[in-house]
Amino acid sequence: MSARAHRHSPLLVVGSVALDDLDGPFGRRPDVLGGSASFFATAASYYAPGAVHLVAVVGDDFPAEHVGFLEKRGVDVSGLERVPGKTFRWAGRYSDDLASRTTLDTQLGVFAGFQPRLGDRHKNAELLFLGNIDPVLQLDVLEQCKRPRLVACDTMNFWITGKLDALRKTLARVDVLIVNDEEARLLSGVHNLVKAAAAIRKLGPKGVVVKRGDSGALLFHEGGIFATPAYPLEDVKDPTGAGDTFAGGFMGYLARSGGVTPEHVKRAMIHGSVMASFCVEDFSLDRMRTLTLEQVAARYRAFHELTHFEHIEL
Amino acid sequence: MSARAHRHSPLLVVGSVALDDLDGPFGRRPDVLGGSASFFATAASYYAPGAVHLVAVVGDDFPAEHVGFLEKRGVDVSGLERVPGKTFRWAGRYSDDLASRTTLDTQLGVFAGFQPRLGDRHKNAELLFLGNIDPVLQLDVLEQCKRPRLVACDTMNFWITGKLDALRKTLARVDVLIVNDEEARLLSGVHNLVKAAAAIRKLGPKGVVVKRGDSGALLFHEGGIFATPAYPLEDVKDPTGAGDTFAGGFMGYLARSGGVTPEHVKRAMIHGSVMASFCVEDFSLDRMRTLTLEQVAARYRAFHELTHFEHIEL
Repeated sequence: MSARAHRHSPLLVVGSVALDDLDGPFGRRPDVLGGSASFFATAASYYAPGAVHLVAVVGDDFPAEHVGFLEKRGVDVSGLERVPGKTFRWAGRYSDDLASRTTLDTQLGVFAGFQPRLGDRHKNAELLFLGNIDPVLQLDVLEQCKRPRLVACDTMNFWITGKLDALRKTLARVDVLIVNDEEARLLSGVHNLVKAAAAIRKLGPKGVVVKRGDSGALLFHEGGIFATPAYPLEDVKDPTGAGDTFAGGFMGYLARSGGVTPEHVKRAMIHGSVMASFCVEDFSLDRMRTLTLEQVAARYRAFHELTHFEHIEL
Repeated sequence: MSARAHRHSPLLVVGSVALDDLDGPFGRRPDVLGGSASFFATAASYYAPGAVHLVAVVGDDFPAEHVGFLEKRGVDVSGLERVPGKTFRWAGRYSDDLASRTTLDTQLGVFAGFQPRLGDRHKNAELLFLGNIDPVLQLDVLEQCKRPRLVACDTMNFWITGKLDALRKTLARVDVLIVNDEEARLLSGVHNLVKAAAAIRKLGPKGVVVKRGDSGALLFHEGGIFATPAYPLEDVKDPTGAGDTFAGGFMGYLARSGGVTPEHVKRAMIHGSVMASFCVEDFSLDRMRTLTLEQVAARYRAFHELTHFEHIEL
C-alpha cells in the first residue's frame, strides 16, 4: 500500500449510471446512486486511482453530488454524458432473506438512446469492462478501443433471451465473461456449472467467472477451476450492485498489478469477493463513502485466513 | 500414504444402518445400503482402516453382503446388532436438479427399539461421532464412553423441533456439531449463519460445521471461520449420504492424523469435502466400492489447487 513507482493500467468501464429505488427488509431507500458503471468504477478506484475511466449517460435530473462522489474516488468522469431527459431508474424489492429480488419498475430514460462515444483516453484503455448493456453497443465499444490487453463483460437474461446473436458476436471477442449462475445456465442451456462454463468458453471467453451470491464465485480458465467463498458477514443490508462491485474489484486488481496471468486472475477473484463483501454491508454505494484501502487490504488477508490450509499429504 | 508407524486413534460411530429406496432424475434404486453410520464408517475407513468401530442395529432381513462390504472396508462391525424384525427403511425422491428431496416413507423397524450398548473396545474410543439419532440415546452413548478426546454429533429438524431439551443436554457435552444450514438456522432461530453458529457455540460445541451442499461448508471455531467450496463436479448422481460421508472424512482424518488442533480441523474440513464429492458421484455407497486412497489423496491435492492463491499484499 506504499506509493508505487509504476502506473496502473488504464481501465475503462462502459455501463449504466442510474438512480435506484430500493425496498426490502431494510426499509425503503428511494433515489439512491446505482448502475453497473457506478458500482464497478467505485470498486476499481481503490486499486487503480486515477486510472479508472467511466463512459455512461445520465439525464439532466442527475444530482451533481453523485458525480462529485465518483470524482472524489479518483474516477475519470469526462466520459459521463449529461443529456436532456430522465436518468435511468430501477426499482426493486428484496425478499426478507435478501436471497431474491423482484424488479418493480425500469425506466430507461436517456439510457434508451445511449450511444457510447469514446474519447482518445478511453480508446487507449488497456483493460476494458463492458457492463450489462445491449451487446450491440458492447461490440461497438470494443471496436472503438485500440488494443485492450484484456476485455471482460457482463450480460443478463434480457439480452441472452432477446439478442443472442449479437451477444455471441460480442462474446467471440471477450476474454472473460463475468455472470451469475442463473445467467451462465441460461446462456449455455446447461444446469451443471462445470459443463455450462465449458460451453461458454467455446463461444470465445478464455475465462468464465460465475458469481453465486453468498455461495461465493467460481473461475473456469486455462489454469483449471478456482473457487472462492463469499466472506461470511454478520449483517447484510443491501445486495444491490454486489455483482458489479465484484467485477470492479476483479478488474481493478488486474489494473493495479499489471498482470493477467492465471495467478493474477486468481487473486483478482479474491479482490472481487473482498469488494463485494463490503458493498453489501450498507445501502447503495454508502459503504464506499468510508471504506479505506487499509480495510480492503485487511479483508484480503482475512480471505486468505478463511480459505488457507496447511497442505500436508496423506 | 506409506505404511505408518503410529496407530490411528480409535473412532466410534453410533447411528443408523438402513435400506434406502431412492427415486430421482437418475431413476429408481430400491433396496440400497443407506443409513448415517454406513456412510460415515465407510468414508472414515479410508483414513483409519481397522480403527473405525460401528454401533447400530439391523433386522433379520438385512443382506449379509452389506455387512461384508463394511468388513471389507476394515470397519469393526462387532457392534452391529442383528435382531428379529425389519431393518430401518427410508424412501425419498429427489427433484430434477437434485437440490431438494422429499421423504416418501420412513419405516423405523427395529431402529425404534435401538438401545446402543457399547463393548469395551467401543468405550475406549478416542474420537466419537454421534450420528443423527434421538438425543437421549446420543447422551447415553456419550456417558458410556470413558474419555473421548473429541466428540462430534449430527442432528436433524425432527429432534430440534421435538426433543430440544434433550438435544441441549447432549450439545452441552459435544465438541463439534456438524449440521446443514437449515438445521443450524432452526436450532439457533437465526437466519444469518455467522450469528447462528455463534448462538450454537454458546450451547456447548467449540466448533460448528455448517454443510451447504454444492455451496461448500463453513467451520466456526476457536481459529475463526474457515470456508471450503464443494468440489465442482460435472456429474452428480445421488446426494444421499453426502453429509454423513463428509462427517466420516472429517473424523476419519482426525483419527489418522492424531491431532485436533485448529489446523488439523481445517484439513479435516477439506477431507470431509473430498469424501462427500466422491459420495455423490454414484448411487448409495457404490462409488466407495472402487474408490482408492490414491484417488482420495489426489482429490485432496485438487482441493488445494482449487482454493489456493499466492498471497501477495496490496
